[in-house]
Amino acid sequence: MSLDLRALFEPRGIAVVGASTDLGRIGGQPIFALTEFGYQGAVYPINPKYPEIRGLKCYGSVTEVPEPCDVALIAVPAKAVPQAILDCGVRGIPFAVVLSAGFREVAGGEQAQRQLDEAIARSSVRVVGPNCQGLLNIRKNVYCGFGAPFQNPHPHSGGVALVTQSGGFGYAVLGLAESAGTGFNCVVSTGNEADIGTLDLIDYLLDRDDVEVVATYMEGIVDGRRLIALGEKAHALGKPIVVWKVGNTEIGRAAAASHTANLSASYELYRAAFRHPGFVPVRDVDDLVDVAKAFANRRRPKGPRVGVMSISGGAGVLLADRCNEHGLQLPALSAPSLAQLKEFMPEFASVANPIDVTAQIFNDLAMFRRALGIIIRDPNVDQVIVYNASIQGATAARLAHELTLVAAETDKPVLVGSSAPPGKATEALEAFAKANLPCYPTPGRAAAAAAALHAFWSAPSTSGKIERSVPRADLPLGEGALSETEAKRFLQAYGIPVVREVILTAEEALSGKAALPFAFPVVAKIDSPDLPHKTEAGAVRVGIGSLEALAAATRDMLASANRYRPGLRVNGISVQEMATGVEMLAGAVNDPYFGPVVVFGLGGIFAELFSEVVHEFAPFSIETARRLIRSTRAAALFDGIRGQEPLDLEAMASTLSRLSHLASDHADRIAEIDINPVFVRPMGQGVVAADALVVLKQEGAPR
Amino acid sequence: MSLDLRALFEPRGIAVVGASTDLGRIGGQPIFALTEFGYQGAVYPINPKYPEIRGLKCYGSVTEVPEPCDVALIAVPAKAVPQAILDCGVRGIPFAVVLSAGFREVAGGEQAQRQLDEAIARSSVRVVGPNCQGLLNIRKNVYCGFGAPFQNPHPHSGGVALVTQSGGFGYAVLGLAESAGTGFNCVVSTGNEADIGTLDLIDYLLDRDDVEVVATYMEGIVDGRRLIALGEKAHALGKPIVVWKVGNTEIGRAAAASHTANLSASYELYRAAFRHPGFVPVRDVDDLVDVAKAFANRRRPKGPRVGVMSISGGAGVLLADRCNEHGLQLPALSAPSLAQLKEFMPEFASVANPIDVTAQIFNDLAMFRRALGIIIRDPNVDQVIVYNASIQGATAARLAHELTLVAAETDKPVLVGSSAPPGKATEALEAFAKANLPCYPTPGRAAAAAAALHAFWSAPSTSGKIERSVPRADLPLGEGALSETEAKRFLQAYGIPVVREVILTAEEALSGKAALPFAFPVVAKIDSPDLPHKTEAGAVRVGIGSLEALAAATRDMLASANRYRPGLRVNGISVQEMATGVEMLAGAVNDPYFGPVVVFGLGGIFAELFSEVVHEFAPFSIETARRLIRSTRAAALFDGIRGQEPLDLEAMASTLSRLSHLASDHADRIAEIDINPVFVRPMGQGVVAADALVVLKQEGAPR
Repeated sequence: MSLDLRALFEPRGIAVVGASTDLGRIGGQPIFALTEFGYQGAVYPINPKYPEIRGLKCYGSVTEVPEPCDVALIAVPAKAVPQAILDCGVRGIPFAVVLSAGFREVAGGEQAQRQLDEAIARSSVRVVGPNCQGLLNIRKNVYCGFGAPFQNPHPHSGGVALVTQSGGFGYAVLGLAESAGTGFNCVVSTGNEADIGTLDLIDYLLDRDDVEVVATYMEGIVDGRRLIALGEKAHALGKPIVVWKVGNTEIGRAAAASHTANLSASYELYRAAFRHPGFVPVRDVDDLVDVAKAFANRRRPKGPRVGVMSISGGAGVLLADRCNEHGLQLPALSAPSLAQLKEFMPEFASVANPIDVTAQIFNDLAMFRRALGIIIRDPNVDQVIVYNASIQGATAARLAHELTLVAAETDKPVLVGSSAPPGKATEALEAFAKANLPCYPTPGRAAAAAAALHAFWSAPSTSGKIERSVPRADLPLGEGALSETEAKRFLQAYGIPVVREVILTAEEALSGKAALPFAFPVVAKIDSPDLPHKTEAGAVRVGIGSLEALAAATRDMLASANRYRPGLRVNGISVQEMATGVEMLAGAVNDPYFGPVVVFGLGGIFAELFSEVVHEFAPFSIETARRLIRSTRAAALFDGIRGQEPLDLEAMASTLSRLSHLASDHADRIAEIDINPVFVRPMGQGVVAADALVVLKQEGAPR
Repeated sequence: MSLDLRALFEPRGIAVVGASTDLGRIGGQPIFALTEFGYQGAVYPINPKYPEIRGLKCYGSVTEVPEPCDVALIAVPAKAVPQAILDCGVRGIPFAVVLSAGFREVAGGEQAQRQLDEAIARSSVRVVGPNCQGLLNIRKNVYCGFGAPFQNPHPHSGGVALVTQSGGFGYAVLGLAESAGTGFNCVVSTGNEADIGTLDLIDYLLDRDDVEVVATYMEGIVDGRRLIALGEKAHALGKPIVVWKVGNTEIGRAAAASHTANLSASYELYRAAFRHPGFVPVRDVDDLVDVAKAFANRRRPKGPRVGVMSISGGAGVLLADRCNEHGLQLPALSAPSLAQLKEFMPEFASVANPIDVTAQIFNDLAMFRRALGIIIRDPNVDQVIVYNASIQGATAARLAHELTLVAAETDKPVLVGSSAPPGKATEALEAFAKANLPCYPTPGRAAAAAAALHAFWSAPSTSGKIERSVPRADLPLGEGALSETEAKRFLQAYGIPVVREVILTAEEALSGKAALPFAFPVVAKIDSPDLPHKTEAGAVRVGIGSLEALAAATRDMLASANRYRPGLRVNGISVQEMATGVEMLAGAVNDPYFGPVVVFGLGGIFAELFSEVVHEFAPFSIETARRLIRSTRAAALFDGIRGQEPLDLEAMASTLSRLSHLASDHADRIAEIDINPVFVRPMGQGVVAADALVVLKQEGAPR
């Protein structure tokens, strides 16, 4: 259940605490906007200095405000904010929007923040901010904030809600997107998120009937699992969360940390989250505008196949490039469609997809309608892009009319590309807008929007009950890291295959007389809880071919490990089979914001060289594990490349799912897990973990 | 030397062959535009049907046209075009622009194309087109073509020239870019390029004083080396070639081929070409607009270091992200600058780069000027991005004034970000335009433009005389492929190290008694010119540990290779040392458009899995080879990752340069070369080719 924030966005009355007679000041701007732009509720200026402001009775304290009052807009200095919140509580005002700055975002603001947090807790007033720029409900003329978006009435509204962690830039985005035609309704800047946070707001806004798209400018959130759950909710509702995430690079993160004092979790985990259903990542204002437009008419492509109809062969090439880059397909039309098209298309037209119908067709409305109808109805086509280059004026308007008529006969998405310069095809653009057909100025932008539609609607849900692929097993007691042998036994308890091994005492290994249950060559390692990095310590030897060589290797390893870590505890000498197969890496981390996460990718130096690892949130099913493997570039190995046998996908998927349960079951105690390498063998021959590291959380360590 | 096309772009007189009295038709539009929009030269309509058109004397044939006439614009049916060209020749008209379609771009148009080619050759008239939309010189009011850009006077002009291989889309791009403020002068659509091609036009336009940037929409060109040379010319002139290349994916290429009948060379080679100096690749209209703006004021960053000054912390985060993605750096300011800033910046401002000076500084002109001056003059800063979020109206104008004054005191690039909605900061934007300071609506676009400036100015020239790293050696006579042994001897002749090997007769190898000059384990292969794919043929055995094993392996290999290719020629059994090191791949291809090209990347399955190969055009110096290696993701191996020893960069670079000379010296006969694997060893230990394949061109095969 989301918080009920209806009274916050549709308040019957608003108190402006710190109201100013100077309508240019932060405490004055809302007085002006709330009285000037058609707000229907009551406005109560609060300031003991004045009897009235702008003809409104002014109150000495928020405790004196009459009914009804749902929101207090607070614009007093930081030190006075906690009392104002307490006063709101006394008066029974359920929501406050705190514009004031000077809390944890500034050096020395920690105390003010603490006092604010206490006031919130004691008053049970729900708070947006502090250090935010405020809140808008454009349809209801609620202008609760300061800065450019609050100083002029918004000329139009629409189905897009915006939640922004950057006040200044968020409102810049709002202004640019509105100029580009995007219609917004509820907009809110979240500031320090002392109480109501970005995710609370997204959650509520998704529930609003007047919201079709929730856009968010995000620096960082603290509850990664809730973010993913909100994506599932968005997907189920058919309302995308259009997410513009910043603070993605090391340097960006440093800046983000100093800005909102929120630590960003690593962008890799956000990327993994955004691959879950419900999210459409964007990178700039135009993307946001384009995506919002694509989702406004609720048409849903059933697959990745796009029919492209273009007047320009050159643009057709570009559309083909871009659709392909985005993973869309341009299939040939069905034979009956091709036959029908060939009946009337000029001989120099191309009926291959992209379909270059030529200027002749665009100049003949009957032919245009007929060609478009054939393409739209084709069973090989899930959505259609029609590109008319820079056709202008009355010709463009006539084509637009035909286009909207044909599009009305299908529920497939129809995206229009029209590169007429601004003002040269106004009537046509209005026709598209009226028919709710998204129209884009360049082919590349149309292709990106088509790709966003496909990605949103094809994302497989990962919510719902996850069938356990393995029962819970106990984690050995202890601290620090498990020894390799302990770690492997723990993996085995979760059904993860490990290499055969035998633990010899040092004496047995040195004797040259041990009996081994498997053939040479073998690997020998010192088994010790004190050596998480055995290779560095010289405590691993591979390719040992005889008992004598084993004795020599043991001598060397003990000497070198004792130099590396004097007085180390030796559980024994682990002698292991030499595993074969393709070297992969599996592991898990326990992120403070996203919880236990499984990591998978190529092993060895390639993991590092190509950063080719993917992440999935634990626990997950075998089916999700299969998709995870298929999403990597290593996927080709599981299909068999260059005549090699395909690798054992099922065994790898099962291992990853089991690992996810292991990580999830013991998230309270496990910090990280490394299975590196895990050798993957050809189909039917399974996988085998050749090394394992399980690092436990430090007792009492902060999350 | 470029073609002198001045008379084409600045004709003293223009004949319109196929002139029409219907000013909406292809033959009528130029008559209207050339008489209406201020063209100063003579206009000669040609059409035997009319005595005059629009008050101009109409001629029956182009042979009757009076002096001066520099261009014939041809809009007659395809079959009449060759005669029109011949007539131009008779009359001494040096240039023709052929709008007519129906040549090789259509099925059955080959004959018309052939006749046109002959007419061009016989007449020595230089021709643009056919199947093009024409040519514009906006400053001189030369409107030689049809379609939207020829139907209205262009409101402004500027320093950008445009050469487009797509008429319809190219002119759509023109219209959109003009609306976004980009000023063009010479614009030409090249159509089928029967004579004057895209590269001829770029070459000439770079020479024009009124051209600062040449933009091109490119589907494919046939002379890749000339493209690269033009980049060098552009770089030397400080005028970028802004290149929008399409037809990049398989499906895109298919569409490109059917459109202009030009085969596109693989996009990988274009990408390699565009990494040479002089090119700025773009992907959409906005990129083109943004880049053109950045280069208009000829300011040159001396390095990758950007100082970011922002009023919005949120946008600062985004700027940091984007600069970082583009390989730019945001260094800390120098200690003196930091000390100066701290004197007057508010305590909650951030002086870390990105520098969030806060609204307080932006509200105080003196402080704004002072802060900006400190940042711009800082020795750690090569260029500056100033982002003022959505400051509007008079405040924006005052800031803009200060900004232009401070910027005038430096020659470092200063890029401005202003996200005020269109129309809300008009005076400020005009001030930036007047001062030639590029201004961008979003932080991401400003960062991309800064990155383009840095990339252009930091590209190291690869032109000039290339010192040979090795003398020329002879390629053995023959056809098909060289045997592995021949191929390796040939590599050795170019100083490329190969594994030690000895060639035994089959009898010696089978005897179990051969004397080997190196230790076991060894590799054995059948040496035969008939087995370019030895692994497939079962003609390779690795890890042979004894003479007996060698005999057995030889028996097996001969049996299996004879099954694979009955009657194959056997030169002997090649017995080779087992090489060690990191497996890389080096090779060369001989591209019909780009000539000999060296390929380098990781070997084994990873080359395929990650498509991690890079290309460089042969021949090249060792210095270029070093840069090539450094540009790959495998570069980390040469620095030493995870505590491994760094690999031998010098040896690899030397080998690649030698290979480039080899490929270049014998480009007339070599089709492809594969050195896979070449083992790269730690620093100082060199590289060694473990296998080699040299495939010769087929005699008489088409290019």
